[in-house]
Amino acid sequence: MSHPFFTYHGPITIDKISELLNIKINITSNSEIAYIKDLGSADKNSLTFLHSKKYNEIAKSTKASYCLTTDLLKDFLPKTCKPIIVENVLMATSIITSKLYPNSIEDEFDSKVNNIEKINFKNKVNYGKNVLIGENVNIGSNCLIGHNTTIEKNVKIGNNCKIGSNTIIRNSIIKDNVSILDNCVIGKKGFGFFPIKSKNLRYPHIGVVIINENCEIGCGATIDRGSMSNTEIGKNTFLDNQVHIAHNVKIGENTIIAGQVGIAGSSIIGSQVRIGGQAGISGHLKIGDNVDIAGGSGVIKDIPKNTKVMGYPAKNIREFLRENK
Amino acid sequence: MSHPFFTYHGPITIDKISELLNIKINITSNSEIAYIKDLGSADKNSLTFLHSKKYNEIAKSTKASYCLTTDLLKDFLPKTCKPIIVENVLMATSIITSKLYPNSIEDEFDSKVNNIEKINFKNKVNYGKNVLIGENVNIGSNCLIGHNTTIEKNVKIGNNCKIGSNTIIRNSIIKDNVSILDNCVIGKKGFGFFPIKSKNLRYPHIGVVIINENCEIGCGATIDRGSMSNTEIGKNTFLDNQVHIAHNVKIGENTIIAGQVGIAGSSIIGSQVRIGGQAGISGHLKIGDNVDIAGGSGVIKDIPKNTKVMGYPAKNIREFLRENK
Amino acid sequence: MSHPFFTYHGPITIDKISELLNIKINITSNSEIAYIKDLGSADKNSLTFLHSKKYNEIAKSTKASYCLTTDLLKDFLPKTCKPIIVENVLMATSIITSKLYPNSIEDEFDSKVNNIEKINFKNKVNYGKNVLIGENVNIGSNCLIGHNTTIEKNVKIGNNCKIGSNTIIRNSIIKDNVSILDNCVIGKKGFGFFPIKSKNLRYPHIGVVIINENCEIGCGATIDRGSMSNTEIGKNTFLDNQVHIAHNVKIGENTIIAGQVGIAGSSIIGSQVRIGGQAGISGHLKIGDNVDIAGGSGVIKDIPKNTKVMGYPAKNIREFLRENK
Repeated sequence: MSHPFFTYHGPITIDKISELLNIKINITSNSEIAYIKDLGSADKNSLTFLHSKKYNEIAKSTKASYCLTTDLLKDFLPKTCKPIIVENVLMATSIITSKLYPNSIEDEFDSKVNNIEKINFKNKVNYGKNVLIGENVNIGSNCLIGHNTTIEKNVKIGNNCKIGSNTIIRNSIIKDNVSILDNCVIGKKGFGFFPIKSKNLRYPHIGVVIINENCEIGCGATIDRGSMSNTEIGKNTFLDNQVHIAHNVKIGENTIIAGQVGIAGSSIIGSQVRIGGQAGISGHLKIGDNVDIAGGSGVIKDIPKNTKVMGYPAKNIREFLRENK
Repeated sequence: MSHPFFTYHGPITIDKISELLNIKINITSNSEIAYIKDLGSADKNSLTFLHSKKYNEIAKSTKASYCLTTDLLKDFLPKTCKPIIVENVLMATSIITSKLYPNSIEDEFDSKVNNIEKINFKNKVNYGKNVLIGENVNIGSNCLIGHNTTIEKNVKIGNNCKIGSNTIIRNSIIKDNVSILDNCVIGKKGFGFFPIKSKNLRYPHIGVVIINENCEIGCGATIDRGSMSNTEIGKNTFLDNQVHIAHNVKIGENTIIAGQVGIAGSSIIGSQVRIGGQAGISGHLKIGDNVDIAGGSGVIKDIPKNTKVMGYPAKNIREFLRENK
Repeated sequence: MSHPFFTYHGPITIDKISELLNIKINITSNSEIAYIKDLGSADKNSLTFLHSKKYNEIAKSTKASYCLTTDLLKDFLPKTCKPIIVENVLMATSIITSKLYPNSIEDEFDSKVNNIEKINFKNKVNYGKNVLIGENVNIGSNCLIGHNTTIEKNVKIGNNCKIGSNTIIRNSIIKDNVSILDNCVIGKKGFGFFPIKSKNLRYPHIGVVIINENCEIGCGATIDRGSMSNTEIGKNTFLDNQVHIAHNVKIGENTIIAGQVGIAGSSIIGSQVRIGGQAGISGHLKIGDNVDIAGGSGVIKDIPKNTKVMGYPAKNIREFLRENK
């Protein structure tokens, strides 16, 4: 089974990996690897990657058959998972992923779009002027799409959705009853790359954006698709204008995010969370359920559930207000 | 007299209100209510609403004949104003407003727009390619409208205005000599709703956006229209790029707002105010005339006139700089 | 030699300057001034301007023949540079610049654009639907331009560039291998003006935007062109989504700028700098090479090279974290 959206160029042999990474690998050379996935979702015949002690616990129970990792970290892997020792795990992961899904790296505009009038959505969609639809796009019934909006390739939209004007969507799954307002860009590659001297090496982004039922996405929002996992927004979560959601972020249900909030890559936000305007959340954090983050806060560490925080760095709101009377 | 923009479905009887809110009302049942307005602007035969002690003073002099309120707050009303006791004042207000102006809740794209070439603005407007104009749009003389801009329904534009490219305007009154640059969204509904378990209840937005003479609105700005009152920007006020102005905000004259500033709902900003880049102002605040707010500040309480503030929370600028040497 | 983009209406005589500024000038009246430039780039026959003690050092070695300045500052000029004493140096500079380049003040949309299909870029550019191209536009080979993008007048694009959809570019020089993603506005005039009572006086912007080789500009970015100098982004520098770069900013090479960062006017950012999400940098600052600015920081003073800073106001990161445990 291949990826829902990106063309699959696998499987790949261990010999080929050895050649691509320019390393020696002591594994019988006729083995083939079908997929590259993160530690949690990898299964037999998959290659995974372990680049930080932070993931040791999840590493112990990975079902992957192979793992790109370092000499220091290899002992955390179960015996069923053979380590492939590399110098830079993320760069090796990037190289192999690019090989399996070569068109996941760049987001060239979809040159195969057609005006919606030429496509058989006429009876299901009420659409504006100059609406463009790419390849591999599915739209449910009773949807609206505003003027000058482009649904590029690899998009699935449910029933009763409202897409505004001047919006661009690609590589995304939009569930039922979702509203996406004007001037949004949903599903572009994330801001991930390896800085090298003269030209940065782009990280492949094989994840998609998933927006679940009853969500609203405000004007001017940018939601990037994930690199090795998806960017996902839970049911009934509402985003105000000019919000930025980076790659791999997961947001729970019934969460409210005010204007100009930014959430950096790979952070996980709970359900029933309320985030005030202009607050920022650093990358790779975990924000529990039912958390209140005051407007303008800068969150730089995990926040346990049922907590109210404020300030930069964000701390308990009572403490912050007492200190700043 | 009806609302300038939203189709009026009133008047409404007390009996109907009783039925809609599922409550008993001890008022002669053949009374009719023409409008629902806030405490200050309501007049005879209008319904108003009082949901917080904060508004007690203005409540005492309201001219409304009826008021949605709570048992605790009803005694602040004058004898000429009959209380209608409800559990959740704002939700009740929302329900009645939706009944009077049903099309003020959702912002579906204007499907009745036409290319400006088909409309008789040819002699008054210098326009770009693919300019779309909706119903109930008036444009003064000597205006410019850039490429791919959509003026949706319910917009009045004065003389000598310059509207950029890729901009969307609806439900707005733009006075003379105003410049609105590229990629803006002006006049969409605000971010107001009542969170309920499976689907949020949208607050109706019967206010409009008013931008007075000689203003400039930078690229990528979002200015939401008001819910029960208007969002208004005073004469000769300039906004830089990527500014967000939420619903019901009022801004005075000759005010300068730098890039990426956000002003949350219902705040009132004075005249001759200078707001530095990325500053944020919480909702329901009052910022006096001639105030300086340093870039990056987070304002969480009222600021008296002629004051300079800085920091998060914003405080006197000298105090802030002394403490942060 | 005239400006690459703005129509030149010079030279201008000293008599004419005297008349425009309504002042007496004790310089032989048949002198002619060809250009107005800043202290560093001005040459013989040029007029320059000195309005602050901050620029005394550079003033001492200016090659300009004339300088708009004040009585207090005039003694810092070399003998080869004749002072022209005015009350408000910047306003006088603005008035003379407007006379030399009258079309550098306003950014009216380019009404002379044509659909790219009518222009001979067909063989060099792979373009989307509704791509508009203005006058004085050059595009290299092997470029992509997405849907609904408008390249207005005065743009030079190199080879192998990728311009996204819904983007607007004017008055800019884009070098080879640059990617500019969707919904950007590049090259508009900066947010510079003199507040006057009833209508602000716009500052002319005769600078352009220069984006050097291998850069990436994220979605929804706004990059304003310079007033008296250029706004320039160095090679291989990457900007994430919703970044705002104000007029006259210079950014070095290999710098990484995360989402929603704002850089105020005339600041100079070094090479190998990393700026975290939502950080803000005040105007007229100098950030050295190899500096780390943590996400959410507010930088209000110069930062020396090889430093890591955090907080608002930004300070040494270790100090900040120790104080905020």
